[in-house]
Amino acid sequence: MAALVNQKPFRLGMIGYGFMGRAHTNGYKRVNDFFDLEYRPVLKAACGRDADKTRAFAKNWGYESVETDWRALIARDDIDAVDICTPNNTHAEIAIAAAEAGKMVLCEKPLAMDLAQGKTMVEAIERAGVPNTVWYNYRRVPAVTLAKQLIDEGRLGRIFHYRANFLQDWTISADLPQGGAGLWRLDVAAAGSGVTGDLLAHCIDTAVWLNGSITKVCAMTETFVKERKHNLTGKIEKVGIDDACSFLCRFENGSLGLFESTRYARGHKALYTFEINGEHASIKWDLHDLHRLQYFDHRDDSIVRGWRSIHVTDGDMPYMKHWWVPGLQIGYEHTFVHQIADFLTNLAQGQPTAPTFRDALETQAICDAVLDSAETNQWENVVPIV
Amino acid sequence: MAALVNQKPFRLGMIGYGFMGRAHTNGYKRVNDFFDLEYRPVLKAACGRDADKTRAFAKNWGYESVETDWRALIARDDIDAVDICTPNNTHAEIAIAAAEAGKMVLCEKPLAMDLAQGKTMVEAIERAGVPNTVWYNYRRVPAVTLAKQLIDEGRLGRIFHYRANFLQDWTISADLPQGGAGLWRLDVAAAGSGVTGDLLAHCIDTAVWLNGSITKVCAMTETFVKERKHNLTGKIEKVGIDDACSFLCRFENGSLGLFESTRYARGHKALYTFEINGEHASIKWDLHDLHRLQYFDHRDDSIVRGWRSIHVTDGDMPYMKHWWVPGLQIGYEHTFVHQIADFLTNLAQGQPTAPTFRDALETQAICDAVLDSAETNQWENVVPIV
Amino acid sequence: MAALVNQKPFRLGMIGYGFMGRAHTNGYKRVNDFFDLEYRPVLKAACGRDADKTRAFAKNWGYESVETDWRALIARDDIDAVDICTPNNTHAEIAIAAAEAGKMVLCEKPLAMDLAQGKTMVEAIERAGVPNTVWYNYRRVPAVTLAKQLIDEGRLGRIFHYRANFLQDWTISADLPQGGAGLWRLDVAAAGSGVTGDLLAHCIDTAVWLNGSITKVCAMTETFVKERKHNLTGKIEKVGIDDACSFLCRFENGSLGLFESTRYARGHKALYTFEINGEHASIKWDLHDLHRLQYFDHRDDSIVRGWRSIHVTDGDMPYMKHWWVPGLQIGYEHTFVHQIADFLTNLAQGQPTAPTFRDALETQAICDAVLDSAETNQWENVVPIV
Amino acid sequence: MAALVNQKPFRLGMIGYGFMGRAHTNGYKRVNDFFDLEYRPVLKAACGRDADKTRAFAKNWGYESVETDWRALIARDDIDAVDICTPNNTHAEIAIAAAEAGKMVLCEKPLAMDLAQGKTMVEAIERAGVPNTVWYNYRRVPAVTLAKQLIDEGRLGRIFHYRANFLQDWTISADLPQGGAGLWRLDVAAAGSGVTGDLLAHCIDTAVWLNGSITKVCAMTETFVKERKHNLTGKIEKVGIDDACSFLCRFENGSLGLFESTRYARGHKALYTFEINGEHASIKWDLHDLHRLQYFDHRDDSIVRGWRSIHVTDGDMPYMKHWWVPGLQIGYEHTFVHQIADFLTNLAQGQPTAPTFRDALETQAICDAVLDSAETNQWENVVPIV
Repeated sequence: MAALVNQKPFRLGMIGYGFMGRAHTNGYKRVNDFFDLEYRPVLKAACGRDADKTRAFAKNWGYESVETDWRALIARDDIDAVDICTPNNTHAEIAIAAAEAGKMVLCEKPLAMDLAQGKTMVEAIERAGVPNTVWYNYRRVPAVTLAKQLIDEGRLGRIFHYRANFLQDWTISADLPQGGAGLWRLDVAAAGSGVTGDLLAHCIDTAVWLNGSITKVCAMTETFVKERKHNLTGKIEKVGIDDACSFLCRFENGSLGLFESTRYARGHKALYTFEINGEHASIKWDLHDLHRLQYFDHRDDSIVRGWRSIHVTDGDMPYMKHWWVPGLQIGYEHTFVHQIADFLTNLAQGQPTAPTFRDALETQAICDAVLDSAETNQWENVVPIV
Repeated sequence: MAALVNQKPFRLGMIGYGFMGRAHTNGYKRVNDFFDLEYRPVLKAACGRDADKTRAFAKNWGYESVETDWRALIARDDIDAVDICTPNNTHAEIAIAAAEAGKMVLCEKPLAMDLAQGKTMVEAIERAGVPNTVWYNYRRVPAVTLAKQLIDEGRLGRIFHYRANFLQDWTISADLPQGGAGLWRLDVAAAGSGVTGDLLAHCIDTAVWLNGSITKVCAMTETFVKERKHNLTGKIEKVGIDDACSFLCRFENGSLGLFESTRYARGHKALYTFEINGEHASIKWDLHDLHRLQYFDHRDDSIVRGWRSIHVTDGDMPYMKHWWVPGLQIGYEHTFVHQIADFLTNLAQGQPTAPTFRDALETQAICDAVLDSAETNQWENVVPIV
Repeated sequence: MAALVNQKPFRLGMIGYGFMGRAHTNGYKRVNDFFDLEYRPVLKAACGRDADKTRAFAKNWGYESVETDWRALIARDDIDAVDICTPNNTHAEIAIAAAEAGKMVLCEKPLAMDLAQGKTMVEAIERAGVPNTVWYNYRRVPAVTLAKQLIDEGRLGRIFHYRANFLQDWTISADLPQGGAGLWRLDVAAAGSGVTGDLLAHCIDTAVWLNGSITKVCAMTETFVKERKHNLTGKIEKVGIDDACSFLCRFENGSLGLFESTRYARGHKALYTFEINGEHASIKWDLHDLHRLQYFDHRDDSIVRGWRSIHVTDGDMPYMKHWWVPGLQIGYEHTFVHQIADFLTNLAQGQPTAPTFRDALETQAICDAVLDSAETNQWENVVPIV
Repeated sequence: MAALVNQKPFRLGMIGYGFMGRAHTNGYKRVNDFFDLEYRPVLKAACGRDADKTRAFAKNWGYESVETDWRALIARDDIDAVDICTPNNTHAEIAIAAAEAGKMVLCEKPLAMDLAQGKTMVEAIERAGVPNTVWYNYRRVPAVTLAKQLIDEGRLGRIFHYRANFLQDWTISADLPQGGAGLWRLDVAAAGSGVTGDLLAHCIDTAVWLNGSITKVCAMTETFVKERKHNLTGKIEKVGIDDACSFLCRFENGSLGLFESTRYARGHKALYTFEINGEHASIKWDLHDLHRLQYFDHRDDSIVRGWRSIHVTDGDMPYMKHWWVPGLQIGYEHTFVHQIADFLTNLAQGQPTAPTFRDALETQAICDAVLDSAETNQWENVVPIV
């Protein structure tokens, strides 16, 4: 009754054991229960600098072994793929080395600290020719995937507007320190930027996927709390990240974009929302009720025309035939299961899995233009990614 | 049983008989039924260039007489106040002449075609010393007035963000002509601008009222349909208005602003929404469900913390004791009744009624900066109004 | 410029000056501003037992005269119609006398104290042959009228379920007295019943209109506060009304019904909701957002199927072309304007206006069956009204 | 790095491989990843009559072995607990035999075909003294558990009303057959009843948990489609189940109850909702947005009083500290993980896990009274469970 009979092992090395380490690992462990795949992930090793914490993590999730140096992990023969869940400032070095070692690379977002660094990563990964993907997981919320499908079917017609925001409220207290394990996202040295790379990058990835390239941007950023104690030094230090960032933009298809992100919007925990307005129809979605898609179709009979609240839980909707029955919702963590399922399916078929490193580079280019614009106080063109 | 016993007449001349002419007239006719006031509006005359239409309007609403020349109306001794409901390009001339004739002036928004023109109006009105107001009616939706009250009570604490949009979808068809009676809002010569003066002006008026002055802006506009048949010439002509306008801004209090308006957002008829995020609490409102205010208070007990949907229909909420009983909602038209009630109350007390011409000038200054910025593609400072 | 030129006077005598007296009077005053009618209401007289209050009411609303005895009002030659807004226990005597005097009768709901009394009223009104209607005003919320239209068009197919409730929370305090001007609805002698006649009667009227006759019922009632001070006697007295009432029922068309009403549902001010489930489509509505209709159509393309939130504000929706523009909502009071507009239109055409006294008798029969069932603890058949 | 070090095995035999077999198995596999427990489930054997299907199921989920006769499963020494996921008509025999064999029993709901059978099960399970639980999983939706907590804290005060419904629409087509693997729920011989045991049983379990015992009921049932093809015989046969069931009831605490369930409510896939109204506060919940709890507290400041939409995703809310971060929702399947976590925790502490067989017997008694009442058309007392 061996479960692995007839399935190829996908021998994974996980680097990082934080929030994302947990979320991805859960995905690897669950994917074969729900998807019929040629590959089956094998949790070969968990890797982290803190040996005790890494061991505890490995034990909790069932990793076979532990490494405290990612170079050692990459050097192992029994690892096919590495998943990079470490802070942003470590992505490039690990990813490049892993690619050069011939490992598949699944990298947390944002891809890099900036566009230049991202380019070196894409070059390395493409030179090595290894399968790769970046964890812009929200593409694989079923309702978001359904939005993509509706747009691809041409239901919306010419697009006029795209707007998105990602609102949180967890850093309002000035007493919150920056840096270290749980708070590296507030430390510009580790994170590269604040909400731009952390939150807007998600919004941008989805936007480009759904609505095509962004050509120019004009942004405004703010750091509301100017100084915070740094967890690594114990000293009060200048805060280098953007607490909030808004930008106007133009898409290649002629539509107008409006994006906003902040960690100072009281009442919103993780409210990622987007809306797209077309000539015939419009779509809205938000992460706080991720299993619903709002759809308005102007071609409906006028007296019964209205926004439809689609409960995305039916078997004919993206990914949902793999789960339960109509009416029973899934949650956040399933997005990772879906990305892994797609990655392993594509792997078997020799296909890439979007967003690839190259796809993610476009988001990086836009983030760079956004941060530049906030500094120059001018419109900035986005560097095109071929 | 004479209804007018003990009440002073407020002898009104109404200029214009379109949508706003109807909405204001309804307000004048209803106000004494629901508010206990020293004054009682008397519908002395309706004025419009088309004699037949003006007569029909006057008959429908019960105006005592008709004028086809606003100068004749202003010259009449039996008129105390004029209400200007004509297209934007006529406001200045009429308002200035009326003020010089000693009439009170109630003027539709936006105040003027531009800031320079608005200044001449304010000068004239203040020189004449006549009571005046501008019809930014949404301040007087009870839920919006309640928002103001909550902010004034300090419930929100330091403000971080203000965002507003006004989304419509009625001009998407390229077959829609511009100009003339029903469509002067699409004709730049009559309207001055498109969504900026028509819709964003409302958003800006509310924003400044709730959150203080805006110091600088950076905007983007677009005209999606470049040419439309003109109803007055019968020819295809260039469209001069902005179909859509978005802008970033900074408020004097340090908060960040984000505004958007369009007539190309399929699915939204008149969706004016705003949200304000403070340190302790946040508020949201939208015109499609205008009787509700969304309120989030972080000081609530954590396990029962959530956005509260306040059904603004109770007697202790702004204006509502004058209407029905808790649970029974009022609608759009009541905002005008409220503004008239406040105007007449203030008149009896010798007090101004906000927004005055001067108050509206600040909105005009911001609109000008927005339109300038869209042209220069740069941040523009808002000219301060003392 | 006489407003009455070409319009026939509809000379009204209003009996009662409470909440409903206000709501109806507002309707009579506004109807011609928005509807093109042959008739124009003239507020001839207001009638009430308390002379001072009646005078104040008359002055506020512009009634030409005052009566303190409804018999005197009915005896007047200059009155065409009486509107009965007094407590339930007075409806029959007034309505019968008015009909016998040849007056048109517009009577507040519920029609009568019980079915037997209601029958005498119907007999009198039909013998006299006078135009008549009962103020089940919620039929004329545009969204509710639209529901009727959708059902009549056959969009729902075979009906399986109808459910409605009317939830309030204003009598929870045991300190609230019963009886007298504002609180006669708590006094069984004046009201006949509690929530059954006051609230469920509305739900039943709509249900029968939308879904046909109810054949049998099984009910449960409760009086949570057993004794309250009586305002007229000053003494603590037994409470005779039903504070809450729920019932199961069968409709003639084979569908199942479920109704509930209470004044002890904390959080609901006046939450009247109904839902009807058909083979192909379903409809939901609630009074707290009365301008919206929820509609689900199973024939929609499966991947974009969902409840549609119809913002009932467009010109092609019932009554709405008379008001403002799409997106701008009307409120509670407009239902009375609509009923008057329909009544006057039908009057000009010699047609009855539903619900007539006879229509309202069916609701009375159902209310009687409900109250009987609550007493007998058994299913009760509804007495058929031919 | 052995994952099982220091954890006691909980050797499971799963009987049934349908929807519930999947849902429970997922729970056993995931529980240790998220909860720190003394026990770790070991999937020893899957059992089903169809050998091929059982093998496929076992392979998919990683069961170590397969049985095709539940008696053989129960006879095995290496099984500590059996989970019964078979149709309702098999629960009793298996559960009693398992208990007698000293196995722990986790049984799908409803417990039994009727109260009499349920009693024999309770007797057997209590005689054997084995740990047991029944899968009324909705108690462990975090929002529902939070509701229980708020009620237990006394926030609601005296309770007046409880209402619940469970609405579906999947059996409307008359072409749907009854009986067999996927459709045994439509076959009265396998299911015992229709919506009463399948759906209302959930509503009743929650209600009794939140609001105490129900003393009497009055019900109405209907079978809309009278005959369906039977999958096992291939013949058109009478449908014996209730397609819809509504009932009125009285709770021991004096509050009134109203329940409804149907599979003919077009537009609702699995809409389980409940609401409870207390003197001070009210609570609402629904399964279609299971991560939200609606809460209204009348003690709030009157001008900011409204229904609060609590996004139940924070670490201080029931179960949520085990999952992700605030704002990120979990779904349906997590309820099973929670019940297993609680069961294993209680097992380690020698405590029972509600709902036990005895707890579930009360729900059975109420279901029996409901079905009896629908037959007798009378109020029926609920047989008390000590």
